[in-house]
Amino acid sequence: MAITYLDHNATTPVRPEAMEAVLDAMREGGNPSSVHAAGRTARKRLEQARRDVAALIGADASRLVFTSGGTEANALALLGSRRPRILYSAIEHDSVRAVHPQAEAVPVTPEGIIDLDALDSMLAADSGPSILSLMLANNETGILQPVAEAREIAQRHGTLVHCDAIQAAGKLPVDVAALDVDLLSISAHKIGGPPGVGALYIRPGLELAAIQRGGGQERRLRGGTENLPGIAGFGAAAQAAASEIGRLQALAGLRDALEEGVMAATPQAVIVGRDMPRLPNTSCIALPGVKAENIVMALDLAGVAVSAGSACSSGKVTASHVLAAMGLPQEVAGGAIRVSFGWTSTAADGEAFLAAWSQTARRLRPMAVAS
Amino acid sequence: MAITYLDHNATTPVRPEAMEAVLDAMREGGNPSSVHAAGRTARKRLEQARRDVAALIGADASRLVFTSGGTEANALALLGSRRPRILYSAIEHDSVRAVHPQAEAVPVTPEGIIDLDALDSMLAADSGPSILSLMLANNETGILQPVAEAREIAQRHGTLVHCDAIQAAGKLPVDVAALDVDLLSISAHKIGGPPGVGALYIRPGLELAAIQRGGGQERRLRGGTENLPGIAGFGAAAQAAASEIGRLQALAGLRDALEEGVMAATPQAVIVGRDMPRLPNTSCIALPGVKAENIVMALDLAGVAVSAGSACSSGKVTASHVLAAMGLPQEVAGGAIRVSFGWTSTAADGEAFLAAWSQTARRLRPMAVAS
Repeated sequence: MAITYLDHNATTPVRPEAMEAVLDAMREGGNPSSVHAAGRTARKRLEQARRDVAALIGADASRLVFTSGGTEANALALLGSRRPRILYSAIEHDSVRAVHPQAEAVPVTPEGIIDLDALDSMLAADSGPSILSLMLANNETGILQPVAEAREIAQRHGTLVHCDAIQAAGKLPVDVAALDVDLLSISAHKIGGPPGVGALYIRPGLELAAIQRGGGQERRLRGGTENLPGIAGFGAAAQAAASEIGRLQALAGLRDALEEGVMAATPQAVIVGRDMPRLPNTSCIALPGVKAENIVMALDLAGVAVSAGSACSSGKVTASHVLAAMGLPQEVAGGAIRVSFGWTSTAADGEAFLAAWSQTARRLRPMAVAS
Repeated sequence: MAITYLDHNATTPVRPEAMEAVLDAMREGGNPSSVHAAGRTARKRLEQARRDVAALIGADASRLVFTSGGTEANALALLGSRRPRILYSAIEHDSVRAVHPQAEAVPVTPEGIIDLDALDSMLAADSGPSILSLMLANNETGILQPVAEAREIAQRHGTLVHCDAIQAAGKLPVDVAALDVDLLSISAHKIGGPPGVGALYIRPGLELAAIQRGGGQERRLRGGTENLPGIAGFGAAAQAAASEIGRLQALAGLRDALEEGVMAATPQAVIVGRDMPRLPNTSCIALPGVKAENIVMALDLAGVAVSAGSACSSGKVTASHVLAAMGLPQEVAGGAIRVSFGWTSTAADGEAFLAAWSQTARRLRPMAVAS
């Protein structure tokens, strides 16, 4: 059975250009820190990839540090800033929420965006050095966050701003100058590069402390032999993603058709954030009273891969903290699945989903709600 | 010009089996944390690689945590143990030496091994909870460390022992049960896997704290989407390395012939640790009074890749902390290069080195030593 893969926000297939680049780097070998010819060749490949990835976010290559992924990029930004106070929107990814036990969650509105008034009050209440982490687009709902407005408020309070652009990059144009943030994270495997590599943009003039210490790699900001095959794949994926950004934005057409089909088949369904500015590829759909894990499993049996919330919790299906933070009732939050299109998606994928969805919705009757 | 690559301790070429495994994992894709079929397939591949890597060190797969490399494995061991006192031998790798600003160096003897009496005294002087990091084999000299003896002393003082086996694995049989250590690090790219992946063995019953937090991956010990292609490559490389361990040990023949050739051509040369139990592949050679970086550059021009000390300091060539800790005079320590054979090496490599060495030694006259 061919799989209809609609879980691109969890991980998207590695692009052929990226595979080729990974393979080339492995074939050539070499440690970029070695001074001999093999090392210099490896170094050249590393710096070319840095330029290619930087170009995707409008950054100067010298401001980019490669990491082992988005989680490490987020940690390097937030812990490396050495700001004693860390704030994050309540809908941030686990890698941000778990970064420090004393970090504080800023509430979000029922519309799924950071509550800017609450942010202002929280920052006003304590004028100590602080950093705010705000994602560009939420990974579960796709809802875009008001980064510019939050940035303005933060600036007034002298607060640094880190932007997790991991889900947005490659799906929307991302430009560090336009966003005017201090730090910005991206991850290779969300844009068609291999997993195991990410990058952090650091604004000129901002000094970070390394969190992984060792050799002097990455301008002393990240010790450890560089994952050159992964980085080379990231570079190739970034180039491909940049040139295909229009195609990715056009996925909104498939997404909208899918949502119309869902509402026609199951009028009781709830589409979270449908009226909000969103990523073009993401749909968060609940069948009130039906458990998300049951939908995911039924669709899986029908050959359709989607997820309940994010994939990052090792198969544990718990109610999404994102939907809970938005104040959605448990019967909706517990029933929401995430459908996410990607660079390989076609109209046939949306149609396969709808066929499986109708079948699934008929079979999975809502549970009796305890009164 | 074909390169004679004799810098395998910096990084060794990726084995064909490992490349194939990386490619397979990229082609198949999937996030091991996803519950659907694609996720389960990825999870299966992850756990197979865990068994293959664990087998290389005689460990149970359930005791292995994958990391982004040896540096992170060392940091997870030492910081994750939450022991307030960290001790390490003065010849440890930078990733250990830099792990915490308050970590204490245990001196080494002129023979290049940890000073066991000093270790005993240092542990006796403070009975608080502590951890010792001791490498199995030094990366610059290849000298094997008395891990069993250090383990015994540490045990008497209730001190945990972490063993950095990154350079030893694949070149010598490594068995966690025989070593009886609490924690042990290995790295893929030193055994013919890709860079960007490592693993930490954790003794049953020992609880570590995660240092990279986020999703619940790696039994909550390491947040972040797994580098599945890299991990799959690590698994394949571990299998190949295990089956080729005899061949790697036999590199001692090439190494010894090289050292004899060096002494015949340049009787003034010093071979560090020649009489000590060493890795079979590593030779640390000094031409007193000649700067190591000049030798490395001259050999590089002649098409022979070796290094001065470790590769991990981003091209910076400073006197080796390893040789300095052994008390070697500066004119020797500053003139030492590392020649390291690997799985692709042949007798022709040793001969090419010797031809270039003789030429280089004739050209590079010792500098006048300031009196």
